[in-house]
Amino acid sequence: MTQETRVTAAMIVIGDEILSGRTKDVNIGAVADFCTDLGIDLTEVRVVSDEMDAIVEAVNALRQRYTYVFTSGGIGPTHDDITADAIATAFGVALPINAQARDMLEARWKQTGTEVNEARLRMARIPEGADLIVNSVSAAPGFRIGNVHVMAGVPVIMRAMLEALAPTLKGGKKVKSVTVKAAVGEGTVGGPLAALQEQYPAVKMGSYPQMGHGKVMTELVLRSSDEALLAEAAEKVRAMVAAAHEKAGVAPPDSE
Amino acid sequence: MTQETRVTAAMIVIGDEILSGRTKDVNIGAVADFCTDLGIDLTEVRVVSDEMDAIVEAVNALRQRYTYVFTSGGIGPTHDDITADAIATAFGVALPINAQARDMLEARWKQTGTEVNEARLRMARIPEGADLIVNSVSAAPGFRIGNVHVMAGVPVIMRAMLEALAPTLKGGKKVKSVTVKAAVGEGTVGGPLAALQEQYPAVKMGSYPQMGHGKVMTELVLRSSDEALLAEAAEKVRAMVAAAHEKAGVAPPDSE
Repeated sequence: MTQETRVTAAMIVIGDEILSGRTKDVNIGAVADFCTDLGIDLTEVRVVSDEMDAIVEAVNALRQRYTYVFTSGGIGPTHDDITADAIATAFGVALPINAQARDMLEARWKQTGTEVNEARLRMARIPEGADLIVNSVSAAPGFRIGNVHVMAGVPVIMRAMLEALAPTLKGGKKVKSVTVKAAVGEGTVGGPLAALQEQYPAVKMGSYPQMGHGKVMTELVLRSSDEALLAEAAEKVRAMVAAAHEKAGVAPPDSE
Repeated sequence: MTQETRVTAAMIVIGDEILSGRTKDVNIGAVADFCTDLGIDLTEVRVVSDEMDAIVEAVNALRQRYTYVFTSGGIGPTHDDITADAIATAFGVALPINAQARDMLEARWKQTGTEVNEARLRMARIPEGADLIVNSVSAAPGFRIGNVHVMAGVPVIMRAMLEALAPTLKGGKKVKSVTVKAAVGEGTVGGPLAALQEQYPAVKMGSYPQMGHGKVMTELVLRSSDEALLAEAAEKVRAMVAAAHEKAGVAPPDSE
C-alpha cells in the first residue's frame, strides 16, 4: 500500500460513564468495523472524561495526525454534555445556535409535543463552519468540522450517524484478510510464523489464541491490500500449519 | 476529595485486532469496574496498534501523568507480541529471560507435555527490574515495572491478573454513587440539573438517556466521595425530578 492510498483515522470516546465502568462501550467496535469496511485504517482510540481540557487536548493531538477523527458522546442537552464546546475551543471558533439544527429539533419537538427550553436548545449549538450530520433516530444532529466528525454516544444513534457520513468519506485501498485455524498452540506456530512474516512484510500476520473451546486452538489472521500476495502467503501459512498438525499428531480443525 | 487521596490510572489496550474490529474489547470495562471498586480514578484509555513507536509513546506519556498505568495485550509467544519489548524500550532497560518466569512456564509445559521452543520462551522475557504478575489461568506471567502493570489481552487471563495485583495497589477514597430515575427526557431535567450541579460542585452529576424501553427514561447519576453531601444532593435531585414528573403529568418510574 503506498502512502497515497493510506487513509487513517482516530476515535475519541468521550464520557465519564465509560471510565467509571457504569456503561460498557460498544462504539469502538462499531467504528472499527465501519473503518475496516471502507478501507480506512483506524490507528488509535482514546477514551477521555467529560472535561474540557481532556477533550481539547485529544482532539488537537489527533486531528493533526490522522486523515479523520471520529468522536462519540457528550452532545446531549445536559450540563455534562460539553463536546460541542470543546470542539469549538479546539478549533478556535464560536458556538452559536445553528438555524438548521434548531429547525430540525423544533420540527421533531412539535411532533412529540416536547417543550422547547434552554437545555434542549444546547443541542442546536454547532461550531461555526461545521456541517451537520443528520440522523434518523433522534433529531439532534452531530456535525463535521475540518476532519473531525462529532457523533452521539447512544450506540444506535452513533451508528445512524456513521451511515449518514459514509458517502462523504474517502476510503483507502481495501485490506483483505484470510484466517487459518490451527489445532496447536500459539507457541508451536510462533517460530515458523515469524519466519513467514519476515518473508512477506506486506502481509500483516497476527496470531490469536482461542480459549474456552476445551481444546487448544489458534487463529492466524493475514491481512494485506495485495490480494495475490495475500493468497501466496496464506498458502505458505496453511502448509506450515499442516506440518505442525502432523508433527503434533492432531487432526486439523473442522473448517477454516 | 483532596489531591492527596486522589489515585488516578490510565489504561493502554494494545492490539491491531481491536482497531480492525475483529475482536471487540471487553477489557476496558473490566479495568474500569476494577478501578472504581478500589477508589482509583480511571482517567484515560488509549487503544494502540502492535507498533513499537505507538506503544512506547503511549506508555511514556501516561506513566508520567497518572498514579498507575494498566496495559492489556501483546504478551504472547508470537512475533506480533511486542509489548514486553516496547515496555523495556520505554523504560530504557534490558529484556532478558527471567529465571522465575522461565521456571513457571517450564513447570506448566512439563505437566502438559508442551515442547519448549524459542517462540514460547519469548513469554519469559521480562524487563530488568520488573516484578511478575502471576495468574492461575495460563502460566505466562504479566509484570509490573515502575507504575506500569502489563497484562494479557485474553479477558479471563487479564481479570486473573487484576485479582493478583489488587493487594499491591493503593486505593483512593471510594466514590459512592446514587442513581435517580426520571420518566422525562434529558432536555426536561437538563436546566434544573445544571443549577444543582453548580450548587454541589463536589458531587459529579451525569445524565444518561435510556433508549429502547418504549418510553422516555433518563438516569441521573450522582458521584462523590463525601457521603453526607451526596445524600443531600440526591435529595434535591429527587425533589427536582418529582416536580418534573408532576409538571409533565407522568408517573414516576417503578423503582430507583
